Amino acid sequence: MTWKEIKTILPKVQVAIIPTGSTEQHGPHLPLQSDTAFCLYICKKASEIVYPIAIVTPPISVGISTHHMKFSGSLSLKPETFIASIYDFAWSLKKHGLSKIVIVNGHGGNMAAIKVAARKIYDELDLISASLSYWELLDGGKAKEILNTYPRFPGHACEFETSLSYVIQPELVRKNQITGSDEIVSSHYEPFFAKIEVEYSKSGVSRGDPRLATPEKGRKLIDIISGEMAVFLRRFGEHGDEP
Amino acid sequence: MTWKEIKTILPKVQVAIIPTGSTEQHGPHLPLQSDTAFCLYICKKASEIVYPIAIVTPPISVGISTHHMKFSGSLSLKPETFIASIYDFAWSLKKHGLSKIVIVNGHGGNMAAIKVAARKIYDELDLISASLSYWELLDGGKAKEILNTYPRFPGHACEFETSLSYVIQPELVRKNQITGSDEIVSSHYEPFFAKIEVEYSKSGVSRGDPRLATPEKGRKLIDIISGEMAVFLRRFGEHGDEP
Amino acid sequence: MTWKEIKTILPKVQVAIIPTGSTEQHGPHLPLQSDTAFCLYICKKASEIVYPIAIVTPPISVGISTHHMKFSGSLSLKPETFIASIYDFAWSLKKHGLSKIVIVNGHGGNMAAIKVAARKIYDELDLISASLSYWELLDGGKAKEILNTYPRFPGHACEFETSLSYVIQPELVRKNQITGSDEIVSSHYEPFFAKIEVEYSKSGVSRGDPRLATPEKGRKLIDIISGEMAVFLRRFGEHGDEP
Amino acid sequence: MTWKEIKTILPKVQVAIIPTGSTEQHGPHLPLQSDTAFCLYICKKASEIVYPIAIVTPPISVGISTHHMKFSGSLSLKPETFIASIYDFAWSLKKHGLSKIVIVNGHGGNMAAIKVAARKIYDELDLISASLSYWELLDGGKAKEILNTYPRFPGHACEFETSLSYVIQPELVRKNQITGSDEIVSSHYEPFFAKIEVEYSKSGVSRGDPRLATPEKGRKLIDIISGEMAVFLRRFGEHGDEP
Amino acid sequence: MTWKEIKTILPKVQVAIIPTGSTEQHGPHLPLQSDTAFCLYICKKASEIVYPIAIVTPPISVGISTHHMKFSGSLSLKPETFIASIYDFAWSLKKHGLSKIVIVNGHGGNMAAIKVAARKIYDELDLISASLSYWELLDGGKAKEILNTYPRFPGHACEFETSLSYVIQPELVRKNQITGSDEIVSSHYEPFFAKIEVEYSKSGVSRGDPRLATPEKGRKLIDIISGEMAVFLRRFGEHGDEP
Amino acid sequence: MTWKEIKTILPKVQVAIIPTGSTEQHGPHLPLQSDTAFCLYICKKASEIVYPIAIVTPPISVGISTHHMKFSGSLSLKPETFIASIYDFAWSLKKHGLSKIVIVNGHGGNMAAIKVAARKIYDELDLISASLSYWELLDGGKAKEILNTYPRFPGHACEFETSLSYVIQPELVRKNQITGSDEIVSSHYEPFFAKIEVEYSKSGVSRGDPRLATPEKGRKLIDIISGEMAVFLRRFGEHGDEP
Repeated sequence: MTWKEIKTILPKVQVAIIPTGSTEQHGPHLPLQSDTAFCLYICKKASEIVYPIAIVTPPISVGISTHHMKFSGSLSLKPETFIASIYDFAWSLKKHGLSKIVIVNGHGGNMAAIKVAARKIYDELDLISASLSYWELLDGGKAKEILNTYPRFPGHACEFETSLSYVIQPELVRKNQITGSDEIVSSHYEPFFAKIEVEYSKSGVSRGDPRLATPEKGRKLIDIISGEMAVFLRRFGEHGDEP
Repeated sequence: MTWKEIKTILPKVQVAIIPTGSTEQHGPHLPLQSDTAFCLYICKKASEIVYPIAIVTPPISVGISTHHMKFSGSLSLKPETFIASIYDFAWSLKKHGLSKIVIVNGHGGNMAAIKVAARKIYDELDLISASLSYWELLDGGKAKEILNTYPRFPGHACEFETSLSYVIQPELVRKNQITGSDEIVSSHYEPFFAKIEVEYSKSGVSRGDPRLATPEKGRKLIDIISGEMAVFLRRFGEHGDEP
Repeated sequence: MTWKEIKTILPKVQVAIIPTGSTEQHGPHLPLQSDTAFCLYICKKASEIVYPIAIVTPPISVGISTHHMKFSGSLSLKPETFIASIYDFAWSLKKHGLSKIVIVNGHGGNMAAIKVAARKIYDELDLISASLSYWELLDGGKAKEILNTYPRFPGHACEFETSLSYVIQPELVRKNQITGSDEIVSSHYEPFFAKIEVEYSKSGVSRGDPRLATPEKGRKLIDIISGEMAVFLRRFGEHGDEP
Repeated sequence: MTWKEIKTILPKVQVAIIPTGSTEQHGPHLPLQSDTAFCLYICKKASEIVYPIAIVTPPISVGISTHHMKFSGSLSLKPETFIASIYDFAWSLKKHGLSKIVIVNGHGGNMAAIKVAARKIYDELDLISASLSYWELLDGGKAKEILNTYPRFPGHACEFETSLSYVIQPELVRKNQITGSDEIVSSHYEPFFAKIEVEYSKSGVSRGDPRLATPEKGRKLIDIISGEMAVFLRRFGEHGDEP
Repeated sequence: MTWKEIKTILPKVQVAIIPTGSTEQHGPHLPLQSDTAFCLYICKKASEIVYPIAIVTPPISVGISTHHMKFSGSLSLKPETFIASIYDFAWSLKKHGLSKIVIVNGHGGNMAAIKVAARKIYDELDLISASLSYWELLDGGKAKEILNTYPRFPGHACEFETSLSYVIQPELVRKNQITGSDEIVSSHYEPFFAKIEVEYSKSGVSRGDPRLATPEKGRKLIDIISGEMAVFLRRFGEHGDEP
Repeated sequence: MTWKEIKTILPKVQVAIIPTGSTEQHGPHLPLQSDTAFCLYICKKASEIVYPIAIVTPPISVGISTHHMKFSGSLSLKPETFIASIYDFAWSLKKHGLSKIVIVNGHGGNMAAIKVAARKIYDELDLISASLSYWELLDGGKAKEILNTYPRFPGHACEFETSLSYVIQPELVRKNQITGSDEIVSSHYEPFFAKIEVEYSKSGVSRGDPRLATPEKGRKLIDIISGEMAVFLRRFGEHGDEP
C-alpha cells in the first residue's frame, strides 16, 4: 500500500498487527522462512475478513532461534533485539495515531519475548496491547479432529506445519525429503527446560508426522485459525483489553 | 550459611535454585511480600527434602508488577532489570562451579521474563537452565480436590494463596479484612492481553474465595508442591535437560 | 531453502549478504516496502549470477525512517535496534562458519548506520565485512545516459525508483497516482543536515520525475547494478578487504 | 503490611528508605546475608522510632561483591544491575506519591554505586534523594569507646559486625568458628585501589577482632546508629536536601 | 570563558559547535592528537569570524579508531560511547536554551557515527542539527590547486594534514621523521570495506606525500575551510535546516 | 607524541593515567574548564617526575555536572557515558599491553563514578586499577598551613582552586570578578545528599575565599600534590594493588 492509501483507511483502523516469525530449520522438507510465512499469511487473511479494522505490518522475520543454530542457515536475534524491534514498530504505529497493537507470533521460541514486549508497549508507550501465537486460537479438540498426529500444540515441521505449507507455500515443500518425526520421548518437565526437545532432533522434525499432511487439512486449519483471529480482532478493536 | 559451610557442601550440590517473587498488593488481608514468601518457603522445603543436592539463593523479592502500581506499596522492576538480576545471580553461581540453574518463580507477572532469563543463561553463560512457577508443579485435579475455588491456576490473594499464608506467614494474615473475590467475568482472551484481570479489581482479590482458605488446605498444597519440586530437582540434578 | 540445502552449499559460499531496506512512504504511487523490494531483488539477482559463492539472508525490512513519520504507514527502528539486528544476523552467520559479510542497503536513511554496523561486525565479531547502498554500484555517467532526471544519487519515488518498480513490483505501481517531484531547491548544505530534503516534500516524491520512468529503463538499471554487484561479490569472496 | 495499610499511612510518610546489602562471605562465623540483615534491622528500628514518617522497602539483598567471588557462595550484581534495581524501586515509590528517597547501604562494595544511583534518581526521576552507609552515622570517637578494635570504619566479619550479629542474628553466629582477623598491613593507598584489602584475606575477616565482640557492644552500637538515623530521617523529612 | 561570560553572550548565540577528533597514530612525524587539534583550531577560527553567533564546546578528543589499534598509543571509543558523548553534550546545550547544534568532525573513522548522532539529537532531543567533517567544506578543485598530492579527500598524516600542522601545531611536527606515503594501491571498492586502507600501512601515512607540505599551504587551506565554515554557520544560524 | 615515540617508551611504562575533569561553572572568575586543566597539569607534572614509568592519556574533559546546569555553559555526561568513556580508554590501553590503570580525577561530581569505573576495569578487563581525586593526595594539615580557608577538602572556585589557577591558567583568571564565597551553612548531612551545597550558591563559589588566593600558595600546593602523586605512581608501578 502507498502512504495515501494508508492515510485513507487509517481513521477506520482499530488494531495494528505485528507478525513475528523465524528463520530457522524446518526439517528436510520445509524452508527456513516457514514460521514467518505461516504467520503473515494467517494475519493477512484475518485482516481481510475484518477489513478495514486491522492492518498488518511487515513481519519480523528473524526471531529467537538460538536453539536451532546447529542446523545450517538458522538465524537468531538476541531477545533484547527482538523485543526492541517490536517496541520500535509499536512506537511508529503510535505516531500514526494507532492505539491498539496485537503481536501475532508464529514461532515457539518467541513466546516469552512477545509477552515481555506486549507489556513494555503497554507500560512504556501507553498503548493497549495483546500478544498471542496463532495456534493458541486453535481449539485442541478441533485440531485433533483434523490431524492424526497433534500434541497439545503444533510441533516442528510436523503434520500441522506441513499441511499449512501445502496451502501457503506449496512450491517450497520438498516432498521427496519428507520423513517422520524423530522418536524423542520427552519428560513432562520439558516445558521447564531452556533447551527444548527439537534441539535433540537430528532431522529437525518433531511432534507430528509430516507424511500425513494434506492440503485439505491445511485449508481447514487456516480457515479455523484465521476465522478465530477475525473474531478476536473485532473484539479487541471494539472493547480493547476489557476483561 | 557461612562461606565455609557452602564450600563444604558445594561438591555435592547439583542444582542452584533462584527464587523470584514480588512486592505487590495481595488483597486487603495478605502482605505485599506474599509471593516472595511462598516461593522461598517452598524452595527451601524442597531443597531440604533433597539435601544436599540443591541450594537456594536469596530471593529476588521485587518482580515485574507494573500492573499493580495503582495499589499502594507495590514495587516493580523493569523487565530488563529483573532479567539482569537473575543473569547476574547465575553468573555468580557459575563462578562457584555450579552448572545447573533453576529459576523458581512465585509471581504471575514474572512468567514470561523468567523464560527469557533462563534461555539467556543457557545461551550466554553456557549453563544448563530451567524455569518454572511453583504452581506449575501442582496437578490441576489434585488442586481441585483440595480447594473449593480454583481455576486452572492460582488467582491472587485467593483461597489458594490465603491457605498457603496460614502455614507460611500466619501472623501476617489480616483475618478480619478477608473479603470475597471481585466478580470479574473475563473473556477467554484474557491470557492474550498485556493488562491482566486483577488490574480491574478493586479489592485486589481475584479468582478464588479467600474466605474458604484453611491451614489444612495450605499444608496439603505445600506438601504436594514441595514434594513434586523435590522430584524435579533430583531429575534435573541427575539428567539435566535431557528430554 | 531448507537447512539441508543450505548445508550442502555452505562449503562453497564465500559471502553472506544482509539486505536492508525500509517501510516508508514512497510517494503517492509506490508501496511502502519499495526500498526493501528493490534491494532484495537486486541482491538475489547478483547472487544468482555468482552462484553459489553468495547467499542472501531475509531482508531487514524496516529501517531508520524517522524522517518519514509524518507520512502515514512509515515505520522506523531506532538506530540502535537497526544496528543490533544486523549484528545478530552476522553473529548467526558466523555460527554457520561464514567469515565475510556484506550489508547491502536500499534506503538512504540507513547509510550511516550500516557503516557503524559493518565496523562493529569487524571489530567485535572478527568477521571481514563491507557495506554499501546498491546505487553506489551505479556509475553516475551511465545513470544519466539512461535516466532523464538523475542527480548524483537516486531521489525518492523518482524516475529511478519508479523504473525499478516497473520491473520489480509492477503490479504495485499506482500509475494513475504518479505526479512530478515537488519543487524543492535545496542548498548544497543539505548533506550536512540531519533533516533531509524529502521531509519538506508534500507528495513524498523528490529529485527525479517519476512520470518519465519506463520498464526498459528499469531493466537497464537493474542489469548494470546487479552485474556490478556480482563483480564485487567475486572480488570480495576471493580477496576480502584487501586494498 | 497490606496495600490498604500502606495506603492509610502514606499521607504521613515523608521518606522512603531503600536498604541495600550483600550476599557474600563474612568470615568463617557469620552468614552470607549479614550485611543485608544488619542494614535492614537498623532501618526498621529507625523507622519505628520516627513512625510513621519513614517506610522501608524490601532490601536489595545482593550487592556488588565481585571482590568476594573467590569465597564460596558470594553473589554479585553488576554495578549497572544494582543501580537499575535502586532506580526501579525509586520509580515505583514515586508512583505512590513519595518524593524523598534515602538509600541506606550496609555493604562497602556498594558505596560508590549508591551515590551514582542517588544522583540519577535526583536528576532523572526528579526525586529528592540521599544515600549513606549506616556506619557513616556512627561517630568514630564513640565507636572506639565501645570497641577495642575499630579503624576509621567497620572492617569485615570483625568485632563490630560480630557484635551486631549477637543482637540481630544471634542464632546464626558460629561461635566455635571465630578466629582473629588476618594480619594484613595495607598501605594508606588502599582506598585508591579497585581491589580491596579483604581480597587478600584467607579467612575473610579483616580490620577488627571478632573474638572481642559481645552482645552488649552490639546493643550500644545499634542504639546509637538507629538513633542517629532517626534524627536524620526527621531532618530529611522536614527539610529535604536543604544545606 | 566563565559562566557569566557565557551567560552574557548566550542570547546572541545561534549555533553550538561540538568538535570531534581522534587520538591515534598520525605517521612517524605528527602527534596522536592531530585530528582533534585541526578540528578545534578551525572551529574556533570560524566561530571568531562569526562572533558571537557560534560557540565551541570542548572537543571529544578520542574518537572511533579501532582501525589504528596496532599503532602504539591509539585510543578508541566504542561507537555507542562516542555517540552517547555527543548526545550528552547536546542535551546539556539544550538545557542552556540552545536549539541548533552542528557536529564538526576531524577524523574519518567518526564520519558515520556523527550522522547517527546528529539524527538522534534531532529525533530524540528535538534540536535542529547538522554534522560535517571539516574537509567537506573544502572544494576539491581548490584543494588540488594548493596541494600537489590530494585524492578526493584528505589522506592520513599526508601533505594536507602536515601542512595544517605547520600552522596549528608547528612545535609538534617531527620534521626529521617525515617519509613518503606507503605505496598502497587500493581498489575502488575501498569505501565499502569496514577495514580501511591505512590499516595496511606500515608507516601510518597514506594518500598524500607529507614531504611536500608547507606552512603556506596550511595557511591557505585553513583560511578557505574556516571561511567556508563561517558562511555555513551564518546560514545555519539564520535559516536552520531549511532546504 | 607520535606513535613511534610511544612505541619506544612503552616497554618502560608501568602505569597509564586517565585524567578526568569537568566543564562547568567555576565562579565568576575562573573558566569552565578549570577542573580539567588542574587535573591534567598535575598528572603531567607527576608523570614527568617519574618519567618514563607513567603516561597520561588525553583528559575526559566533560564530567558529571548535572548539579551545575543552572549555570550557563556547564556541560554534563550521564554517568553511564562517563563510565563507558573511561572503560573504552582502558580497553584501548590494554590493547597496547598496559596492565595498570589509574584514573586521576579533578571534579567532585565524578568521585563515585570513577570508583565504579575502576572496579569495572578490574573485573571486566582484568586490569589492575586505581582511582583517586588529586586532592586526596594532599594532607589536610599541610593544606591548612598553606591556605587560610580550607575545609576538609577543596571547595569550588575557592582559595584552593584560584591559587592553582594563578599557576596553571593565570591568563584565564578574571581578577576583577573575584568575590567571596556565598555564605551557605550546610548541615553535616550534606555528604549524604544527592544535591550538593554549591547548587544553592548564587555566585558558584563555595567553601573557601578566592580573594586570599596567591600564586605562591598555588605553587606549594602543586608541588606537594604532584610530588605525592609521583610517590604513588612509583609504588603502584612496582607493587600494583598489593595491600
